[in-house]
Amino acid sequence: MTRGRFVSFEGIEGSGKTTQITRLADRWRADGVPLLITREPGGTRLGESMRRVLLDAQTMDLTPEAELLLFYASRSQNIEEKIRPALERGDTVICDRFFDASFAYQGYGRGLDLSVIERLTDLVCRDFRPELTVLLDIDPATGLERARRRNRSRAREEGRFESEDLDFYERVRDGYLDLARRDPDRIRVVPALGAVEDVEARVHSVLAAHAHQP
Amino acid sequence: MTRGRFVSFEGIEGSGKTTQITRLADRWRADGVPLLITREPGGTRLGESMRRVLLDAQTMDLTPEAELLLFYASRSQNIEEKIRPALERGDTVICDRFFDASFAYQGYGRGLDLSVIERLTDLVCRDFRPELTVLLDIDPATGLERARRRNRSRAREEGRFESEDLDFYERVRDGYLDLARRDPDRIRVVPALGAVEDVEARVHSVLAAHAHQP
Repeated sequence: MTRGRFVSFEGIEGSGKTTQITRLADRWRADGVPLLITREPGGTRLGESMRRVLLDAQTMDLTPEAELLLFYASRSQNIEEKIRPALERGDTVICDRFFDASFAYQGYGRGLDLSVIERLTDLVCRDFRPELTVLLDIDPATGLERARRRNRSRAREEGRFESEDLDFYERVRDGYLDLARRDPDRIRVVPALGAVEDVEARVHSVLAAHAHQP
Repeated sequence: MTRGRFVSFEGIEGSGKTTQITRLADRWRADGVPLLITREPGGTRLGESMRRVLLDAQTMDLTPEAELLLFYASRSQNIEEKIRPALERGDTVICDRFFDASFAYQGYGRGLDLSVIERLTDLVCRDFRPELTVLLDIDPATGLERARRRNRSRAREEGRFESEDLDFYERVRDGYLDLARRDPDRIRVVPALGAVEDVEARVHSVLAAHAHQP
Protein backbone atom coordinates (compact mmCIF):
# COMPACT_ATOMS: atom_id res chain seq x y z
CA MET A 1 0.00 0.00 0.00
CA THR A 2 1.50 3.31 -1.11
CA ARG A 3 1.53 6.03 1.54
CA GLY A 4 -0.42 9.20 0.87
CA ARG A 5 -3.20 7.51 -1.11
CA PHE A 6 -6.25 9.61 -1.90
CA VAL A 7 -9.45 7.63 -2.41
CA SER A 8 -12.97 9.01 -2.83
CA PHE A 9 -16.33 7.28 -2.57
CA GLU A 10 -19.25 8.39 -4.67
CA GLY A 11 -22.86 7.36 -5.06
CA ILE A 12 -26.38 8.60 -4.63
CA GLU A 13 -28.27 8.69 -1.33
CA GLY A 14 -28.70 5.21 0.10
CA SER A 15 -25.83 3.67 -1.86
CA GLY A 16 -24.07 2.74 1.38
CA LYS A 17 -21.04 5.02 1.12
CA THR A 18 -20.80 5.81 4.80
CA THR A 19 -21.13 2.16 5.82
CA GLN A 20 -18.47 1.05 3.37
CA ILE A 21 -16.11 3.87 4.31
CA THR A 22 -16.43 2.95 7.98
CA ARG A 23 -15.62 -0.70 7.26
CA LEU A 24 -12.68 0.16 5.03
CA ALA A 25 -11.35 2.61 7.61
CA ASP A 26 -11.60 -0.02 10.34
CA ARG A 27 -9.64 -2.48 8.22
CA TRP A 28 -6.96 0.03 7.27
CA ARG A 29 -6.63 1.29 10.83
CA ALA A 30 -6.19 -2.32 12.00
CA ASP A 31 -3.35 -2.56 9.47
CA GLY A 32 -1.77 0.55 11.01
CA VAL A 33 -2.44 2.85 8.06
CA PRO A 34 -2.58 6.53 9.18
CA LEU A 35 -5.91 7.82 7.94
CA LEU A 36 -7.87 10.98 7.36
CA ILE A 37 -11.56 10.46 6.70
CA THR A 38 -13.38 13.51 5.50
CA ARG A 39 -16.64 14.33 3.81
CA GLU A 40 -18.13 16.88 1.51
CA PRO A 41 -19.66 19.18 2.20
CA GLY A 42 -17.90 19.40 5.53
CA GLY A 43 -14.53 18.48 6.93
CA THR A 44 -13.69 21.96 8.21
CA ARG A 45 -15.40 24.60 10.31
CA LEU A 46 -16.43 26.45 7.16
CA GLY A 47 -17.40 23.21 5.45
CA GLU A 48 -19.63 22.07 8.26
CA SER A 49 -21.44 25.39 8.27
CA MET A 50 -21.88 25.06 4.47
CA ARG A 51 -23.16 21.52 5.10
CA ARG A 52 -25.88 22.85 7.35
CA VAL A 53 -26.98 25.29 4.65
CA LEU A 54 -26.77 22.77 1.81
CA LEU A 55 -28.39 19.75 3.39
CA ASP A 56 -30.88 21.37 5.73
CA ALA A 57 -34.37 20.67 4.46
CA GLN A 58 -35.25 24.20 5.67
CA THR A 59 -32.98 25.81 3.05
CA MET A 60 -35.51 26.66 0.39
CA ASP A 61 -34.99 28.09 -3.07
CA LEU A 62 -31.22 27.93 -3.11
CA THR A 63 -30.23 28.75 -6.69
CA PRO A 64 -28.40 25.92 -8.51
CA GLU A 65 -25.44 28.27 -8.98
CA ALA A 66 -25.26 29.16 -5.28
CA GLU A 67 -25.45 25.47 -4.41
CA LEU A 68 -22.57 24.67 -6.76
CA LEU A 69 -20.44 27.52 -5.41
CA LEU A 70 -21.00 26.58 -1.77
CA PHE A 71 -19.86 23.03 -2.51
CA TYR A 72 -16.69 24.34 -4.15
CA ALA A 73 -16.03 26.82 -1.32
CA SER A 74 -16.27 23.94 1.14
CA ARG A 75 -14.00 21.84 -1.10
CA SER A 76 -11.35 24.54 -1.34
CA GLN A 77 -11.20 24.87 2.41
CA ASN A 78 -11.14 21.10 2.92
CA ILE A 79 -8.22 20.66 0.50
CA GLU A 80 -6.09 23.38 2.04
CA GLU A 81 -6.89 22.71 5.70
CA LYS A 82 -7.15 18.92 5.75
CA ILE A 83 -6.47 16.92 2.59
CA ARG A 84 -3.24 18.51 1.40
CA PRO A 85 -1.55 18.45 4.85
CA ALA A 86 -2.64 14.83 5.39
CA LEU A 87 -1.27 13.65 2.03
CA GLU A 88 1.95 15.57 2.67
CA ARG A 89 2.30 13.77 6.00
CA GLY A 90 1.92 10.52 4.07
CA ASP A 91 -1.53 9.72 5.46
CA THR A 92 -4.15 7.98 3.39
CA VAL A 93 -7.20 10.13 2.74
CA ILE A 94 -10.71 8.76 2.23
CA CYS A 95 -13.17 11.37 1.06
CA ASP A 96 -16.94 10.80 1.27
CA ARG A 97 -17.74 12.52 -2.06
CA PHE A 98 -15.43 14.84 -3.97
CA PHE A 99 -15.67 16.75 -7.24
CA ASP A 100 -17.40 13.95 -9.16
CA ALA A 101 -20.45 14.66 -7.01
CA SER A 102 -20.59 18.24 -8.31
CA PHE A 103 -20.60 17.00 -11.90
CA ALA A 104 -23.25 14.37 -11.10
CA TYR A 105 -25.58 16.48 -8.93
CA GLN A 106 -25.22 20.06 -10.13
CA GLY A 107 -24.22 19.19 -13.71
CA TYR A 108 -26.24 16.15 -14.76
CA GLY A 109 -28.85 16.55 -12.00
CA ARG A 110 -29.53 20.30 -12.07
CA GLY A 111 -28.47 20.96 -15.62
CA LEU A 112 -25.58 23.38 -14.99
CA ASP A 113 -22.97 23.62 -17.73
CA LEU A 114 -20.31 20.91 -17.24
CA SER A 115 -17.59 23.19 -18.62
CA VAL A 116 -18.24 25.68 -15.83
CA ILE A 117 -17.85 22.88 -13.29
CA GLU A 118 -14.61 21.83 -14.96
CA ARG A 119 -13.34 25.39 -14.65
CA LEU A 120 -14.26 25.51 -10.96
CA THR A 121 -12.55 22.17 -10.43
CA ASP A 122 -9.35 23.54 -11.99
CA LEU A 123 -9.58 26.67 -9.83
CA VAL A 124 -10.18 24.87 -6.55
CA CYS A 125 -8.64 21.40 -6.89
CA ARG A 126 -5.72 22.07 -9.23
CA ASP A 127 -3.72 18.84 -9.16
CA PHE A 128 -5.67 17.32 -6.26
CA ARG A 129 -7.44 14.40 -7.82
CA PRO A 130 -8.34 11.13 -6.11
CA GLU A 131 -6.18 8.35 -7.51
CA LEU A 132 -9.14 6.00 -7.15
CA THR A 133 -12.87 6.66 -6.91
CA VAL A 134 -15.25 3.92 -5.81
CA LEU A 135 -18.66 4.54 -7.32
CA LEU A 136 -21.30 2.61 -5.37
CA ASP A 137 -24.02 2.13 -7.93
CA ILE A 138 -27.63 1.51 -6.97
CA ASP A 139 -30.92 2.12 -8.67
CA PRO A 140 -32.42 5.35 -7.33
CA ALA A 141 -35.75 3.91 -6.18
CA THR A 142 -33.95 1.45 -3.88
CA GLY A 143 -31.36 3.98 -2.74
CA LEU A 144 -33.91 6.64 -1.89
CA GLU A 145 -36.06 4.18 0.02
CA ARG A 146 -33.00 3.23 2.12
CA ALA A 147 -32.02 6.88 2.67
CA ARG A 148 -35.49 7.98 3.69
CA ARG A 149 -35.88 5.09 6.12
CA ARG A 150 -32.55 5.97 7.69
CA ASN A 151 -33.45 9.65 7.98
CA ARG A 152 -36.77 8.87 9.62
CA SER A 153 -35.25 6.46 12.11
CA ARG A 154 -32.42 8.81 13.08
CA ALA A 155 -34.48 12.02 12.95
CA ARG A 156 -31.78 13.48 10.74
CA GLU A 157 -32.16 17.03 9.53
CA GLU A 158 -30.18 16.53 6.33
CA GLY A 159 -33.15 15.92 4.09
CA ARG A 160 -32.89 18.60 1.41
CA PHE A 161 -31.48 16.37 -1.31
CA GLU A 162 -33.64 13.39 -0.36
CA SER A 163 -36.69 15.51 -1.11
CA GLU A 164 -35.75 15.66 -4.80
CA ASP A 165 -37.83 13.47 -7.08
CA LEU A 166 -36.82 10.20 -8.65
CA ASP A 167 -36.13 11.81 -12.04
CA PHE A 168 -33.46 13.94 -10.43
CA TYR A 169 -31.75 10.86 -9.00
CA GLU A 170 -32.01 9.02 -12.32
CA ARG A 171 -30.11 11.88 -13.92
CA VAL A 172 -27.52 11.90 -11.12
CA ARG A 173 -26.99 8.14 -11.35
CA ASP A 174 -26.71 8.24 -15.14
CA GLY A 175 -24.29 11.14 -14.75
CA TYR A 176 -22.09 9.14 -12.39
CA LEU A 177 -22.06 6.19 -14.79
CA ASP A 178 -21.18 8.54 -17.65
CA LEU A 179 -18.29 9.98 -15.64
CA ALA A 180 -17.09 6.41 -14.98
CA ARG A 181 -17.17 5.62 -18.71
CA ARG A 182 -15.13 8.74 -19.43
CA ASP A 183 -12.49 8.04 -16.77
CA PRO A 184 -12.48 4.24 -16.33
CA ASP A 185 -8.93 4.07 -14.90
CA ARG A 186 -9.89 6.21 -11.92
CA ILE A 187 -13.60 5.60 -11.35
CA ARG A 188 -14.57 1.97 -10.59
CA VAL A 189 -18.23 1.05 -10.52
CA VAL A 190 -19.19 -1.27 -7.65
CA PRO A 191 -22.77 -2.63 -7.55
CA ALA A 192 -24.17 -1.60 -4.18
CA LEU A 193 -27.04 -4.07 -3.90
CA GLY A 194 -26.82 -7.10 -1.63
CA ALA A 195 -25.45 -7.78 1.82
CA VAL A 196 -23.07 -5.22 3.32
CA GLU A 197 -20.35 -7.90 3.49
CA ASP A 198 -20.72 -8.71 -0.20
CA VAL A 199 -20.41 -5.06 -1.20
CA GLU A 200 -17.43 -4.76 1.14
CA ALA A 201 -15.74 -7.68 -0.61
CA ARG A 202 -16.28 -5.98 -4.00
CA VAL A 203 -14.83 -2.71 -2.69
CA HIS A 204 -11.87 -4.61 -1.26
CA SER A 205 -11.06 -6.31 -4.56
CA VAL A 206 -11.27 -3.02 -6.47
CA LEU A 207 -8.85 -1.42 -4.00
CA ALA A 208 -6.52 -4.42 -4.04
CA ALA A 209 -6.44 -4.49 -7.84
CA HIS A 210 -5.62 -0.80 -7.92
CA ALA A 211 -2.89 -1.10 -5.30
CA HIS A 212 -1.16 -3.76 -7.38
CA GLN A 213 -1.09 -1.69 -10.53
CA PRO A 214 2.39 -0.66 -11.63
CA MET B 1 -35.88 58.93 -14.05
CA THR B 2 -36.35 55.56 -15.72
CA ARG B 3 -38.10 52.94 -13.62
CA GLY B 4 -36.22 49.75 -12.81
CA ARG B 5 -32.81 51.41 -12.59
CA PHE B 6 -29.98 49.33 -11.17
CA VAL B 7 -27.18 51.33 -9.56
CA SER B 8 -24.24 49.99 -7.58
CA PHE B 9 -21.82 51.77 -5.26
CA GLU B 10 -18.24 50.61 -4.94
CA GLY B 11 -15.21 51.67 -2.95
CA ILE B 12 -12.80 50.49 -0.32
CA GLU B 13 -13.49 50.51 3.43
CA GLY B 14 -14.06 54.03 4.72
CA SER B 15 -14.99 55.48 1.31
CA GLY B 16 -18.41 56.47 2.64
CA LYS B 17 -20.59 54.15 0.53
CA THR B 18 -23.13 53.46 3.22
CA THR B 19 -23.52 57.15 4.11
CA GLN B 20 -23.96 58.16 0.48
CA ILE B 21 -26.40 55.33 -0.23
CA THR B 22 -28.51 56.35 2.76
CA ARG B 23 -28.63 59.97 1.58
CA LEU B 24 -29.44 59.03 -1.99
CA ALA B 25 -32.15 56.64 -0.82
CA ASP B 26 -33.70 59.35 1.36
CA ARG B 27 -33.79 61.72 -1.59
CA TRP B 28 -35.26 59.18 -3.98
CA ARG B 29 -37.83 58.03 -1.44
CA ALA B 30 -38.87 61.65 -0.92
CA ASP B 31 -39.40 61.79 -4.70
CA GLY B 32 -41.66 58.71 -4.45
CA VAL B 33 -39.25 56.32 -6.20
CA PRO B 34 -39.92 52.69 -5.16
CA LEU B 35 -36.57 51.40 -3.92
CA LEU B 36 -34.73 48.24 -3.02
CA ILE B 37 -31.49 48.79 -1.17
CA THR B 38 -29.34 45.72 -0.82
CA ARG B 39 -25.77 44.89 0.02
CA GLU B 40 -23.16 42.29 -0.73
CA PRO B 41 -22.45 40.03 0.85
CA GLY B 42 -25.96 39.86 2.26
CA GLY B 43 -29.42 40.82 1.16
CA THR B 44 -30.94 37.36 1.67
CA ARG B 45 -31.01 34.81 4.46
CA LEU B 46 -28.21 32.87 2.76
CA GLY B 47 -26.33 36.07 1.99
CA GLU B 48 -26.43 37.32 5.55
CA SER B 49 -25.08 34.01 6.81
CA MET B 50 -22.31 34.25 4.17
CA ARG B 51 -21.69 37.82 5.38
CA ARG B 52 -21.06 36.59 8.90
CA VAL B 53 -18.51 34.07 7.61
CA LEU B 54 -16.82 36.51 5.24
CA LEU B 55 -16.57 39.60 7.39
CA ASP B 56 -16.20 38.07 10.84
CA ALA B 57 -12.70 38.77 12.10
CA GLN B 58 -12.84 35.29 13.68
CA THR B 59 -12.90 33.58 10.26
CA MET B 60 -9.26 32.70 9.87
CA ASP B 61 -7.43 31.16 6.94
CA LEU B 62 -10.28 31.26 4.49
CA THR B 63 -8.75 30.32 1.12
CA PRO B 64 -8.95 33.09 -1.51
CA GLU B 65 -10.91 30.69 -3.72
CA ALA B 66 -13.47 29.89 -0.98
CA GLU B 67 -13.82 33.62 -0.29
CA LEU B 68 -14.52 34.33 -3.97
CA LEU B 69 -17.05 31.50 -4.23
CA LEU B 70 -18.95 32.54 -1.11
CA PHE B 71 -19.31 36.05 -2.51
CA TYR B 72 -20.70 34.67 -5.77
CA ALA B 73 -23.05 32.27 -3.97
CA SER B 74 -24.42 35.20 -2.00
CA ARG B 75 -24.70 37.22 -5.23
CA SER B 76 -26.59 34.49 -7.05
CA GLN B 77 -29.12 34.26 -4.27
CA ASN B 78 -29.46 38.05 -4.03
CA ILE B 79 -30.12 38.39 -7.77
CA GLU B 80 -32.79 35.69 -7.89
CA GLU B 81 -34.52 36.47 -4.60
CA LYS B 82 -34.32 40.25 -4.50
CA ILE B 83 -32.78 42.16 -7.39
CA ARG B 84 -34.50 40.51 -10.36
CA PRO B 85 -38.02 40.64 -8.80
CA ALA B 86 -37.50 44.28 -7.78
CA LEU B 87 -36.37 45.35 -11.25
CA GLU B 88 -39.25 43.42 -12.80
CA ARG B 89 -41.66 45.31 -10.51
CA GLY B 90 -40.10 48.51 -11.83
CA ASP B 91 -38.36 49.38 -8.57
CA THR B 92 -35.00 51.10 -8.52
CA VAL B 93 -32.25 48.95 -6.99
CA ILE B 94 -29.23 50.34 -5.18
CA CYS B 95 -26.62 47.72 -4.39
CA ASP B 96 -23.88 48.35 -1.83
CA ARG B 97 -21.13 46.54 -3.80
CA PHE B 98 -21.68 44.15 -6.69
CA PHE B 99 -19.40 42.15 -8.99
CA ASP B 100 -16.81 44.91 -9.42
CA ALA B 101 -15.88 44.31 -5.79
CA SER B 102 -14.97 40.70 -6.60
CA PHE B 103 -12.62 41.83 -9.36
CA ALA B 104 -11.08 44.52 -7.12
CA TYR B 105 -10.71 42.49 -3.90
CA GLN B 106 -10.27 38.87 -4.96
CA GLY B 107 -8.71 39.62 -8.35
CA TYR B 108 -6.46 42.65 -7.93
CA GLY B 109 -6.25 42.35 -4.13
CA ARG B 110 -5.71 38.62 -3.63
CA GLY B 111 -4.26 37.86 -7.04
CA LEU B 112 -6.89 35.43 -8.35
CA ASP B 113 -7.13 35.09 -12.13
CA LEU B 114 -9.45 37.78 -13.53
CA SER B 115 -10.67 35.44 -16.28
CA VAL B 116 -12.01 33.03 -13.65
CA ILE B 117 -13.90 35.90 -12.03
CA GLU B 118 -15.29 36.87 -15.43
CA ARG B 119 -16.50 33.31 -15.93
CA LEU B 120 -18.18 33.30 -12.51
CA THR B 121 -19.80 36.63 -13.30
CA ASP B 122 -21.25 35.18 -16.51
CA LEU B 123 -22.49 32.10 -14.62
CA VAL B 124 -24.13 34.01 -11.79
CA CYS B 125 -25.06 37.45 -13.12
CA ARG B 126 -25.80 36.67 -16.78
CA ASP B 127 -27.32 39.92 -18.09
CA PHE B 128 -27.71 41.52 -14.67
CA ARG B 129 -25.30 44.42 -14.80
CA PRO B 130 -25.68 47.72 -13.00
CA GLU B 131 -26.38 50.44 -15.54
CA LEU B 132 -24.35 52.83 -13.42
CA THR B 133 -21.66 52.22 -10.82
CA VAL B 134 -20.52 55.01 -8.51
CA LEU B 135 -16.93 54.39 -7.44
CA LEU B 136 -16.17 56.40 -4.31
CA ASP B 137 -12.43 56.85 -4.52
CA ILE B 138 -10.29 57.53 -1.48
CA ASP B 139 -6.68 56.91 -0.65
CA PRO B 140 -6.43 53.73 1.42
CA ALA B 141 -4.62 55.25 4.42
CA THR B 142 -7.44 57.75 4.93
CA GLY B 143 -10.19 55.21 4.20
CA LEU B 144 -8.82 52.61 6.59
CA GLU B 145 -8.37 55.16 9.36
CA ARG B 146 -12.05 56.13 8.95
CA ALA B 147 -13.20 52.49 8.86
CA ARG B 148 -11.20 51.45 11.90
CA ARG B 149 -12.45 54.42 13.92
CA ARG B 150 -16.03 53.54 12.99
CA ASN B 151 -15.55 49.87 13.91
CA ARG B 152 -14.08 50.77 17.28
CA SER B 153 -16.81 53.23 18.13
CA ARG B 154 -19.60 50.85 17.13
CA ALA B 155 -17.97 47.68 18.45
CA ARG B 156 -18.62 46.14 15.06
CA GLU B 157 -17.61 42.56 14.45
CA GLU B 158 -17.05 42.94 10.71
CA GLY B 159 -13.32 43.50 10.92
CA ARG B 160 -11.84 40.72 8.77
CA PHE B 161 -11.13 42.87 5.72
CA GLU B 162 -10.06 45.90 7.76
CA SER B 163 -7.25 43.80 9.23
CA GLU B 164 -5.59 43.53 5.80
CA ASP B 165 -2.51 45.67 5.33
CA LEU B 166 -2.24 48.90 3.40
CA ASP B 167 -0.59 47.19 0.40
CA PHE B 168 -3.71 45.07 -0.03
CA TYR B 169 -5.91 48.16 -0.11
CA GLU B 170 -3.56 49.93 -2.53
CA ARG B 171 -4.01 47.00 -4.92
CA VAL B 172 -7.79 47.03 -4.44
CA ARG B 173 -8.03 50.76 -5.07
CA ASP B 174 -5.77 50.57 -8.13
CA GLY B 175 -7.91 47.66 -9.32
CA TYR B 176 -11.09 49.69 -8.98
CA LEU B 177 -9.53 52.57 -10.92
CA ASP B 178 -8.38 50.14 -13.60
CA LEU B 179 -11.92 48.74 -13.89
CA ALA B 180 -13.23 52.30 -14.26
CA ARG B 181 -10.75 53.00 -17.06
CA ARG B 182 -11.88 49.85 -18.86
CA ASP B 183 -15.60 50.59 -18.55
CA PRO B 184 -15.87 54.39 -18.32
CA ASP B 185 -19.48 54.56 -19.50
CA ARG B 186 -20.70 52.51 -16.56
CA ILE B 187 -18.22 53.19 -13.76
CA ARG B 188 -17.94 56.82 -12.66
CA VAL B 189 -15.17 57.79 -10.27
CA VAL B 190 -16.26 60.20 -7.53
CA PRO B 191 -13.59 61.60 -5.18
CA ALA B 192 -14.71 60.67 -1.67
CA LEU B 193 -12.66 63.17 0.33
CA GLY B 194 -14.25 66.26 1.84
CA ALA B 195 -17.53 67.01 3.59
CA VAL B 196 -20.33 64.47 3.26
CA GLU B 197 -22.49 67.13 1.57
CA ASP B 198 -19.82 67.86 -1.04
CA VAL B 199 -19.46 64.18 -1.91
CA GLU B 200 -23.24 63.90 -2.04
CA ALA B 201 -23.39 66.78 -4.53
CA ARG B 202 -20.81 64.99 -6.72
CA VAL B 203 -22.79 61.73 -6.58
CA HIS B 204 -25.94 63.64 -7.44
CA SER B 205 -24.43 65.24 -10.52
CA VAL B 206 -23.07 61.89 -11.76
CA LEU B 207 -26.53 60.33 -11.40
CA ALA B 208 -28.25 63.31 -13.01
CA ALA B 209 -25.85 63.29 -15.97
CA HIS B 210 -26.47 59.57 -16.46
CA ALA B 211 -30.27 59.94 -16.22
CA HIS B 212 -30.18 62.54 -18.99
CA GLN B 213 -28.21 60.39 -21.37
CA PRO B 214 -30.20 59.31 -24.41
